[in-house]
Amino acid sequence: MKALGPIPPEFTAKEGELAIGGRTASELVKEAGDTPLFVYSRAIIEQRIGDLRKAMPERLKIHFAMKANPYGLLLEFMADLVDGLDIASAGELEQAREAGYLPREISFAGPGKRDRELFAAIRAGVTLNLESANEAERALQIGKQLGIAPRLAIRVNPPFELRGSGMKMGGGAKPFGVDADRVPTLARTIVDAGANWRGFHIYSGSQALDAEALIEAQGHVLDLAAQLAGEAGVEVPHLNMGGGFGIPYFDKDTPLDVAAIGVALEKRFADLPGVLKDTQFAIELGRYLVGEAGVYLTRIVDRKVSHDTTYLVTDGGLHHQLAASGNFGTVVRRNYPVAIATRFDAEPEEEVNVVGCLCTPLDRLADAAHLPRAEVGDLVAVFCAGAYGASASPATFLGQGPALEMLV
Amino acid sequence: MKALGPIPPEFTAKEGELAIGGRTASELVKEAGDTPLFVYSRAIIEQRIGDLRKAMPERLKIHFAMKANPYGLLLEFMADLVDGLDIASAGELEQAREAGYLPREISFAGPGKRDRELFAAIRAGVTLNLESANEAERALQIGKQLGIAPRLAIRVNPPFELRGSGMKMGGGAKPFGVDADRVPTLARTIVDAGANWRGFHIYSGSQALDAEALIEAQGHVLDLAAQLAGEAGVEVPHLNMGGGFGIPYFDKDTPLDVAAIGVALEKRFADLPGVLKDTQFAIELGRYLVGEAGVYLTRIVDRKVSHDTTYLVTDGGLHHQLAASGNFGTVVRRNYPVAIATRFDAEPEEEVNVVGCLCTPLDRLADAAHLPRAEVGDLVAVFCAGAYGASASPATFLGQGPALEMLV
Repeated sequence: MKALGPIPPEFTAKEGELAIGGRTASELVKEAGDTPLFVYSRAIIEQRIGDLRKAMPERLKIHFAMKANPYGLLLEFMADLVDGLDIASAGELEQAREAGYLPREISFAGPGKRDRELFAAIRAGVTLNLESANEAERALQIGKQLGIAPRLAIRVNPPFELRGSGMKMGGGAKPFGVDADRVPTLARTIVDAGANWRGFHIYSGSQALDAEALIEAQGHVLDLAAQLAGEAGVEVPHLNMGGGFGIPYFDKDTPLDVAAIGVALEKRFADLPGVLKDTQFAIELGRYLVGEAGVYLTRIVDRKVSHDTTYLVTDGGLHHQLAASGNFGTVVRRNYPVAIATRFDAEPEEEVNVVGCLCTPLDRLADAAHLPRAEVGDLVAVFCAGAYGASASPATFLGQGPALEMLV
Repeated sequence: MKALGPIPPEFTAKEGELAIGGRTASELVKEAGDTPLFVYSRAIIEQRIGDLRKAMPERLKIHFAMKANPYGLLLEFMADLVDGLDIASAGELEQAREAGYLPREISFAGPGKRDRELFAAIRAGVTLNLESANEAERALQIGKQLGIAPRLAIRVNPPFELRGSGMKMGGGAKPFGVDADRVPTLARTIVDAGANWRGFHIYSGSQALDAEALIEAQGHVLDLAAQLAGEAGVEVPHLNMGGGFGIPYFDKDTPLDVAAIGVALEKRFADLPGVLKDTQFAIELGRYLVGEAGVYLTRIVDRKVSHDTTYLVTDGGLHHQLAASGNFGTVVRRNYPVAIATRFDAEPEEEVNVVGCLCTPLDRLADAAHLPRAEVGDLVAVFCAGAYGASASPATFLGQGPALEMLV
């Protein structure tokens, strides 16, 4: 038997079934017309962002990193809840504008921006988080060509990392950002070139559940920003402090103590060095805002026993849930939170493997899971499916195509 | 410094550049209009299949497993070169029919076939490789509903595995196929129900480079098919012997000795048990037929140094090359064969990391690779990109969208 990850506490049963936004899993699938289906809950997202705002200093802006979930209706919904949007490509810029975001609320980071992406961003008036001296040069030149002072910030490759983070984005050689020791010269160049200087973007890691580690990293970010601005003799109109707030995916993971982070940040904000006194601070969060609000629903197509092992074969799989299958940046696969959605309040009574419909042993949704007995036709729910699910999976693999999505 | 995988020997330089189908990488990109671009070579595929036919017994049919590469023009091209097609979903069935395959040349395997997929396949006259007793029952019922005797074979979960294979598909509990000891009863049921009985599908593993292991597995497949048919008292009109022929991706990998496999199979075919005397035999290959014929071309957008490490940042990445990035069924990432396409005959002179444009440390195309000095604008080639590339990667991730593809 292998443990399952923790189901977010917001999810409860209704008429014996998992309910999302007050409707049962069966009703939602009926309304959507088919499985597999991603369902995202407005109420859970609103609650999450409301709680976060209460915990954080009022001065701190909250941005949404849309790479976590670019579903159109969700993106539109988020526009009223957050203060800014972080994008990673010209493709995301288009999606963001369709969803109603104003260019001045948008910043664009990414190590491989093409000229045509710089053109699109500068023309629109989006802030570029510059990843290199070469990119800065290209952006300035394109600004000149367009007769626009481009909104430019520098993404800094910090000399520290976010301890215990799922993905380290700082500390040592990285393809992201400009090494800290080269930042002051570059900042001067940009300001002297007459760009609309926006400040810094310092991102040191992601998916951390340890508040102390995040407090430490945010402290380093503030120190580094002040130091770099001082050395360069430039102001810091805006400081994107990165994200890194994690959510519990696996057994024994515990939710992040955001209250502690808020208290620590409030203290730091009360005692800022001169150069940061007028700075607008922001954190950019993707997974933390929407990850737990999403559920992936897939129907059991077959129930079979092979050599005394029971398999529930579903119509979904890794083509929509690459990370849950254990194939995206994971060394050892562990189970996400998974349940039988149509028997949500039933007691577990058997050990089963939940697999997808793809013809590959990589397609696993839950290994040796203790679940209520389920039959063909029952719905399986994979939780924590609101971030890096639909858009971060190979939807066309084996001719399957994308899942349905809905916001409730 | 980390080794790169071996570049397939068919690729040579022309005017200093990598040439595919007689045209340089730059010409191909110009013609396609943009990067990233997958280029698949007709000549290499033809050569590969021609060599394979020479090595294999004439009696052996060669099927293409389209999951390896469903690109439309390639699929059409393959139709004249192979004897059959293996599909894994109703989506692939549609693509196959558009590409001109006849339903009776097509077989459909996959553990999570939905009713509507069974309907589509039976209506079309495709052979179903049944994965369970439940699926057999559903197929017979749908056949009855449609007034069609469905073409049915049983996919057997064999009690042996393909030694040294990249993915084990047999030996022990599996979601694929029917455990061998339950096959005779099921075969009888199917024959007695008046279905168009097609025989067995026995697949024991994939991506093996050891001819001895494949010879052993094929021997076991023939023994098992004869044994099961004998026990069930049924004929074996067709036997899909699986695939498993691998290609060299990594340093020290050596090409498969198909001649040895052909000789061994010829011997076995000369001495078949009565029940297999009239059987039509087939192998199903995906990667082996098309993998080495494909190259992924991506342009260098930035060249940067971070803490003395040089990064070549490209406009491609894991959204098209998930497996090459080391994020698809790999525990330890190793480098695929990679080259600077626009300096294909230049000597290596520096150690660089080739990365994609995505904002994640997972997006790596070559680590610590020894390559000729390359500049912004140069093209990078990732080889062995003809299988499990474009369609097996999360193309929409970070708003990037799919790569271009062309057949030359």
